[in-house]
Amino acid sequence: MTRQRDGGQAGAAAALDLGYARVDTDRESRQGLPEVVYGPGKTTGQIRGIVTGLLTHNAGPVLVTRLDEETAAAVGGAVPGGRYDAASRLLVWRPAPAGSFRVTVVTAGTADLPVAAEALGVCRAVGLAATAVADVGVAGLDRVLAVRDQLQASDAVIVAAGMEGALASVVGGLVRCPVVAVPVSSGYGAGLEGVTALLAMHASCAAGLTVVNIDSGFAAAMAVHRIAQVAAGRR
Amino acid sequence: MTRQRDGGQAGAAAALDLGYARVDTDRESRQGLPEVVYGPGKTTGQIRGIVTGLLTHNAGPVLVTRLDEETAAAVGGAVPGGRYDAASRLLVWRPAPAGSFRVTVVTAGTADLPVAAEALGVCRAVGLAATAVADVGVAGLDRVLAVRDQLQASDAVIVAAGMEGALASVVGGLVRCPVVAVPVSSGYGAGLEGVTALLAMHASCAAGLTVVNIDSGFAAAMAVHRIAQVAAGRR
Amino acid sequence: MTRQRDGGQAGAAAALDLGYARVDTDRESRQGLPEVVYGPGKTTGQIRGIVTGLLTHNAGPVLVTRLDEETAAAVGGAVPGGRYDAASRLLVWRPAPAGSFRVTVVTAGTADLPVAAEALGVCRAVGLAATAVADVGVAGLDRVLAVRDQLQASDAVIVAAGMEGALASVVGGLVRCPVVAVPVSSGYGAGLEGVTALLAMHASCAAGLTVVNIDSGFAAAMAVHRIAQVAAGRR
Amino acid sequence: MTRQRDGGQAGAAAALDLGYARVDTDRESRQGLPEVVYGPGKTTGQIRGIVTGLLTHNAGPVLVTRLDEETAAAVGGAVPGGRYDAASRLLVWRPAPAGSFRVTVVTAGTADLPVAAEALGVCRAVGLAATAVADVGVAGLDRVLAVRDQLQASDAVIVAAGMEGALASVVGGLVRCPVVAVPVSSGYGAGLEGVTALLAMHASCAAGLTVVNIDSGFAAAMAVHRIAQVAAGRR
Amino acid sequence: MTRQRDGGQAGAAAALDLGYARVDTDRESRQGLPEVVYGPGKTTGQIRGIVTGLLTHNAGPVLVTRLDEETAAAVGGAVPGGRYDAASRLLVWRPAPAGSFRVTVVTAGTADLPVAAEALGVCRAVGLAATAVADVGVAGLDRVLAVRDQLQASDAVIVAAGMEGALASVVGGLVRCPVVAVPVSSGYGAGLEGVTALLAMHASCAAGLTVVNIDSGFAAAMAVHRIAQVAAGRR
Amino acid sequence: MTRQRDGGQAGAAAALDLGYARVDTDRESRQGLPEVVYGPGKTTGQIRGIVTGLLTHNAGPVLVTRLDEETAAAVGGAVPGGRYDAASRLLVWRPAPAGSFRVTVVTAGTADLPVAAEALGVCRAVGLAATAVADVGVAGLDRVLAVRDQLQASDAVIVAAGMEGALASVVGGLVRCPVVAVPVSSGYGAGLEGVTALLAMHASCAAGLTVVNIDSGFAAAMAVHRIAQVAAGRR
Amino acid sequence: MTRQRDGGQAGAAAALDLGYARVDTDRESRQGLPEVVYGPGKTTGQIRGIVTGLLTHNAGPVLVTRLDEETAAAVGGAVPGGRYDAASRLLVWRPAPAGSFRVTVVTAGTADLPVAAEALGVCRAVGLAATAVADVGVAGLDRVLAVRDQLQASDAVIVAAGMEGALASVVGGLVRCPVVAVPVSSGYGAGLEGVTALLAMHASCAAGLTVVNIDSGFAAAMAVHRIAQVAAGRR
Amino acid sequence: MTRQRDGGQAGAAAALDLGYARVDTDRESRQGLPEVVYGPGKTTGQIRGIVTGLLTHNAGPVLVTRLDEETAAAVGGAVPGGRYDAASRLLVWRPAPAGSFRVTVVTAGTADLPVAAEALGVCRAVGLAATAVADVGVAGLDRVLAVRDQLQASDAVIVAAGMEGALASVVGGLVRCPVVAVPVSSGYGAGLEGVTALLAMHASCAAGLTVVNIDSGFAAAMAVHRIAQVAAGRR
Repeated sequence: MTRQRDGGQAGAAAALDLGYARVDTDRESRQGLPEVVYGPGKTTGQIRGIVTGLLTHNAGPVLVTRLDEETAAAVGGAVPGGRYDAASRLLVWRPAPAGSFRVTVVTAGTADLPVAAEALGVCRAVGLAATAVADVGVAGLDRVLAVRDQLQASDAVIVAAGMEGALASVVGGLVRCPVVAVPVSSGYGAGLEGVTALLAMHASCAAGLTVVNIDSGFAAAMAVHRIAQVAAGRR
Repeated sequence: MTRQRDGGQAGAAAALDLGYARVDTDRESRQGLPEVVYGPGKTTGQIRGIVTGLLTHNAGPVLVTRLDEETAAAVGGAVPGGRYDAASRLLVWRPAPAGSFRVTVVTAGTADLPVAAEALGVCRAVGLAATAVADVGVAGLDRVLAVRDQLQASDAVIVAAGMEGALASVVGGLVRCPVVAVPVSSGYGAGLEGVTALLAMHASCAAGLTVVNIDSGFAAAMAVHRIAQVAAGRR
Repeated sequence: MTRQRDGGQAGAAAALDLGYARVDTDRESRQGLPEVVYGPGKTTGQIRGIVTGLLTHNAGPVLVTRLDEETAAAVGGAVPGGRYDAASRLLVWRPAPAGSFRVTVVTAGTADLPVAAEALGVCRAVGLAATAVADVGVAGLDRVLAVRDQLQASDAVIVAAGMEGALASVVGGLVRCPVVAVPVSSGYGAGLEGVTALLAMHASCAAGLTVVNIDSGFAAAMAVHRIAQVAAGRR
Repeated sequence: MTRQRDGGQAGAAAALDLGYARVDTDRESRQGLPEVVYGPGKTTGQIRGIVTGLLTHNAGPVLVTRLDEETAAAVGGAVPGGRYDAASRLLVWRPAPAGSFRVTVVTAGTADLPVAAEALGVCRAVGLAATAVADVGVAGLDRVLAVRDQLQASDAVIVAAGMEGALASVVGGLVRCPVVAVPVSSGYGAGLEGVTALLAMHASCAAGLTVVNIDSGFAAAMAVHRIAQVAAGRR
Repeated sequence: MTRQRDGGQAGAAAALDLGYARVDTDRESRQGLPEVVYGPGKTTGQIRGIVTGLLTHNAGPVLVTRLDEETAAAVGGAVPGGRYDAASRLLVWRPAPAGSFRVTVVTAGTADLPVAAEALGVCRAVGLAATAVADVGVAGLDRVLAVRDQLQASDAVIVAAGMEGALASVVGGLVRCPVVAVPVSSGYGAGLEGVTALLAMHASCAAGLTVVNIDSGFAAAMAVHRIAQVAAGRR
Repeated sequence: MTRQRDGGQAGAAAALDLGYARVDTDRESRQGLPEVVYGPGKTTGQIRGIVTGLLTHNAGPVLVTRLDEETAAAVGGAVPGGRYDAASRLLVWRPAPAGSFRVTVVTAGTADLPVAAEALGVCRAVGLAATAVADVGVAGLDRVLAVRDQLQASDAVIVAAGMEGALASVVGGLVRCPVVAVPVSSGYGAGLEGVTALLAMHASCAAGLTVVNIDSGFAAAMAVHRIAQVAAGRR
Repeated sequence: MTRQRDGGQAGAAAALDLGYARVDTDRESRQGLPEVVYGPGKTTGQIRGIVTGLLTHNAGPVLVTRLDEETAAAVGGAVPGGRYDAASRLLVWRPAPAGSFRVTVVTAGTADLPVAAEALGVCRAVGLAATAVADVGVAGLDRVLAVRDQLQASDAVIVAAGMEGALASVVGGLVRCPVVAVPVSSGYGAGLEGVTALLAMHASCAAGLTVVNIDSGFAAAMAVHRIAQVAAGRR
Repeated sequence: MTRQRDGGQAGAAAALDLGYARVDTDRESRQGLPEVVYGPGKTTGQIRGIVTGLLTHNAGPVLVTRLDEETAAAVGGAVPGGRYDAASRLLVWRPAPAGSFRVTVVTAGTADLPVAAEALGVCRAVGLAATAVADVGVAGLDRVLAVRDQLQASDAVIVAAGMEGALASVVGGLVRCPVVAVPVSSGYGAGLEGVTALLAMHASCAAGLTVVNIDSGFAAAMAVHRIAQVAAGRR
């Protein structure tokens, strides 16, 4: 597939206009992955149309995120070949073969598991070798120390933490590799639905920690996907 | 000194009206310590008047907090017997003899030292056996683990932490004793002048952590003073 | 049960890995109480697994907080010996025998009762001698003055107050013992779901007041548990 | 002086256009007091021009608020008959004779005195019988109880309170008359420069308390001026 | 009924302890009106108990606010003599006879009517002569000018305004009497559920405007009740 | 229809008082369009009454916004001649004939379509020649470049964008004509329900961009209606 | 000057790279006005370089905004032909000849004058016929009614208002033409440095009002410039 | 240098206790770079002590950030071999030799240059091949399109943008490699000192964008340093 770079014309050619959506069919050649479909607020028909367009005009994995089971069944029935996972709320066609880039997805507590599931699911769908380490919140520090070796053997770490954004700082201080922190909206009161964790992760003392949007396991996985591509020498 | 409990009359008797201030001279018998004077926004003359009143009507330590050197010199010159410490900005008369209640004041980074100094100074002025442990931020976790034994041997721990509110959670998980967290307004950007640390400490996963106002080493020391009194069986 | 202090190895031994949770079985020896289970966001099966692990590996009280009646019935049916209380939403196994540390839980208004119930329930489950004083909001000051003696005879006071965070300041000025303030999310408008009370309690003029997270009767009780332990000379 | 009510024409007649300001000369007949001049951001020349216009076209007291000493001297030199008070930062011409409406201005702490001074100064300039009660913060409850009788004998109470917004609730519960609360920006950290006190005063449990802008002793005095007029049967 | 002023004893005598509530039976003699019951968060049984206590120990009007029809029917059935009004959500026993103090309740738009209804209902229940003026938002300025005479003939004005907090400033500039502004949580987006209107009303340029909590028609009415009492010479 | 300008009298004449609403019947002559009815919070009967009044006293288009299908059916059944569109939630009588002023309504993503539908619907109802361009978010920049010519041929552009407020800046930099930005409350987490987009649009580097309230396709269309009138020389 | 539209190439040609700045020399042909230079944070040398580039590559007015007198003198000395105005802080070369599009810049109070001065200055520099109306805040409504005819004869109105954002709503309801509101950061306390006015203007009930950034007289003028161009048929 | 992993003992050995600081000398072996010293709030003596410790116990580059010229001269005089750069406020000893990992640091406007300078300086000190692209804000889209090829040839891109957070989204959509966004506190009003840019970058539609703290060019560079290490196969 040849990449077109020349402004206006390429734009005209590379977008599939469905009326309700303008599918960025050029994204796969530009960024190494077809556009990912954000499920909420779209009708079953719209999702089906976009997915069909992506499967037709691109060659790689096609993902729909944050999909409830009912809509997933309706879409999956209409566009064969997709696999739905309720924990991660992901519907995936043509997942990439597993690669060698090792990602560890760490959670502070059980309430962070759904966000971690999305991160894990997207990582695997795009070919990253992702594994999970659950419930190593810093109130029991020995738990995170017990998995220190696994963390240090990773190529990248994703930390999903809600009330205890502290885990991102601790992990960030333990490892050499990139750490992507996902604030989680679990908890109550002063947690301010994830805003406190987001701010705290930014104010962290662990140098070189980066942060993505609240509850976005997807964004964290995509950040790691970018890293894995540059590590693999793809540009 | 007999404690008066009967409402209106006691109140009338127990307050020294200076016009600009109504000194709560009963507080020593009620709470085990004379009223502490908050320095900012008061004139030298006002501070001198209040301190003189407290020294006359009470028997215990008299403290002025957040005092700059110049005002301290002016007040100290007029009311003999006070000792000023520039690091903690405290001016103290009649400090209590050192007791046996062990308090450790922990800081995450060098920028938290002024707040820790106030906490230490107030603790010592009221008779607590306070020591400091500096710069054990969680980005280098081995630092806090290295002082684990000292922390676990404390009767109470005060944690002053700014950009890295995380240290309070970590310490809270390591020790059995009361932990009082002081958010510090150091740092920049997402730290929101200490508000982020304050919220994060409240959202902490370490059970039973309590929090005081931003930068208030004084409030943390007073919280521990209350604990020390109940531990000593005073009521 | 011997307490292990040596970092990594102890951590490996002291955590029970259930996949979805890593139970901190060492916490009882470290902090005097087994880990407490936060109910929301966990499945019945997960709670059952964690509780069973805690009952097996620890000797003290096991608590699940914020549990609705239906889940409580399902969990309680599967793990015998637990007692559920709907007012406090607590499910408790092996409550500690009542001790002598006196805690008074004070509320400003009727809307604060559920939070106070959680504080009371946790206090009692861990062996504190807790009693409640309801509806002494400062708009009718004589009400709190009428219970002044009871407050002053306490070893610690917990103040749960929503729209009227003012009660914490008033109580903080009346007593010598530790006061833990719990902001409550009752009220409307400018109360900002408890955030106003939380901030106001921090800005309070009553020296040595400490604050916990919004609506967390649990956190307040745990803070007092720490105080009671140090008062009892346990470390 | 006849009051004009007929829309456009009256408006054209009743405003004195100085170019940089359009003096509302009709306000005295409409509201019982000439327009009050807010000092900050105006040049000496502008203030002089507006004051001269007000003295010429109106008969009652003319006030400039928040004026520093230097500008006050310059303006006062140019427009004779004014009296400046540094504590309240007010410059006043033709103060009203003292009336019989009793106002008590209460402060929680010494840091609230400047705001109280502005309230007192404006009250007196417009003819209210205002007295001050300083430093009766609720941390020493007996202090406010000691002045209960004076408060209950007032026609209106103004409460200026910063870190301790609680005083407004307590006073609001003690008296029958109108209570106007002024949040003060003193304090630090969680006080959020007066915003916490403002919100807390609104969330107060004392029924019928009203609130004005942060630090605005002027607004509180004007609110009481409106009340005094209706109490005097003026309309 | 004789008013007791002597601290502790009066307090003990003047509060009716129901366990879940401590009814401030002294409030009627202290403030001219029995305690008003805030409905939400209380059970039918609790409301019945408190109302019965108030009817027994006080002589004046008894009100329950923010009550839905179902609970009102249950409470009203158990405690005869009450009258419920669905628009204001008020349940009232023994309303005061209509007095001569004239209150106008003004709304900016139709969405503000429920808040105005509560203000009107409470005003009338406590004996104020209240009338309503609806939908005079400033986008059509002639509407408010058309009722200028009615506003200027009032003893007090309550302005309930949501998206258009501007109306309070406009009315505040038109009348001489006290103006109490109630921010309303109607509207969307930048209205921030009434917080924007609350802040804007405080920042208003109309001198002497006072503000109460968001959506609290009750608080506005109680503020006017205080004013009416002082205007009637009651203290 | 003659426009009346003389203050009070005109106001009295020009408003239709329905009790629950005061219809600004003069608005059509003053601003070129009858008052538009905001549906939420009004009863079917109220909407019917206001619409009937507007149809009777005005000659132009009558619109009700944000109406659900059920209420629309009830109102439409009672007042014949209206047309309801479910996508825009608009109910319209007497739409204006299509004019020549060209408006392009641009959306960043599919989730912004409902807001764009309201903008489109109102534009068309008041006679603007409006067309839509969907899903040209800046993450695939070639999409917006592909429609550059259409944008540059517009008389005004409305940009509805949620998580990606960035589109407003980009469009603002591409065209010469007025650009009205509508922040949309779609998205999650750091989007803060549209507040982030609103603030970002204000901080935009594209000179002369203006912003309306979150989700208000209506406000954007009305802003363009004002522009179209001045462009047509109407005043 | 021919306008280039073809993407990448045009971009390469149309930007003047100075190292520290990339001057958008194409903007004049694209948007009808050369890029405007924002002064703060740039060195004298940088401003001189950018201005020289703009004067050389463009034909229309060149403006630097928010410039203090000292820097203005240094820049003006180096690049002849510019005229500095201290009130508006603008330095202008080659102002456009005065056109016929009438803009009225209205202020609520004297404190809003600096922002109005910037709006006026930019309007005039780009050829709009702008006049000012000062100090017509709504607390004295007759003042704004007195200028109603002037407002209604405008082609566009800019409203600069700080503590009293209300003026924008009132003006928005009086005129048919576009109204651009500029929130001003004057005032104190609840004004939140202009944020309250910004939010209140967005929540305004006056349909079709648009808002620009706090204190940005520049942005308002540019918004009107866009409108004037479309009204003049330029595209 | 052998890396020690065994908890407590390693911690004791790997930290250099200076009293005011506990230098994490193990960090170089753990994370590939000695601890970086944050300048503000430290005395010249403290910085000198920490730097000397790091130079002695580590082998790699030693950096002090955010240092003013005066302190830099004092520290540099005492510890020879350091080089200070005023634009980036960095003082560096033993910079790493230039490597092959290509980083492009992009700014939206001239005001973002100081933050970009810090990012560039840190990148180069740790051996990354960093170059700058200035002033490609999206209001002139052709500017960023003109450097599209350079961006796409990078191994990582850092985007520093203040008022125009939009640039991060645009760049994120153009390139395949990791993009780290730095919100900048330049601008005014609705920019909220960088908070708006921070939130907007998180809400961005460009998948896989990550964000660091406001104004932290340092944090962005360190995030890229982590990525470069994993790309180089170091762990």
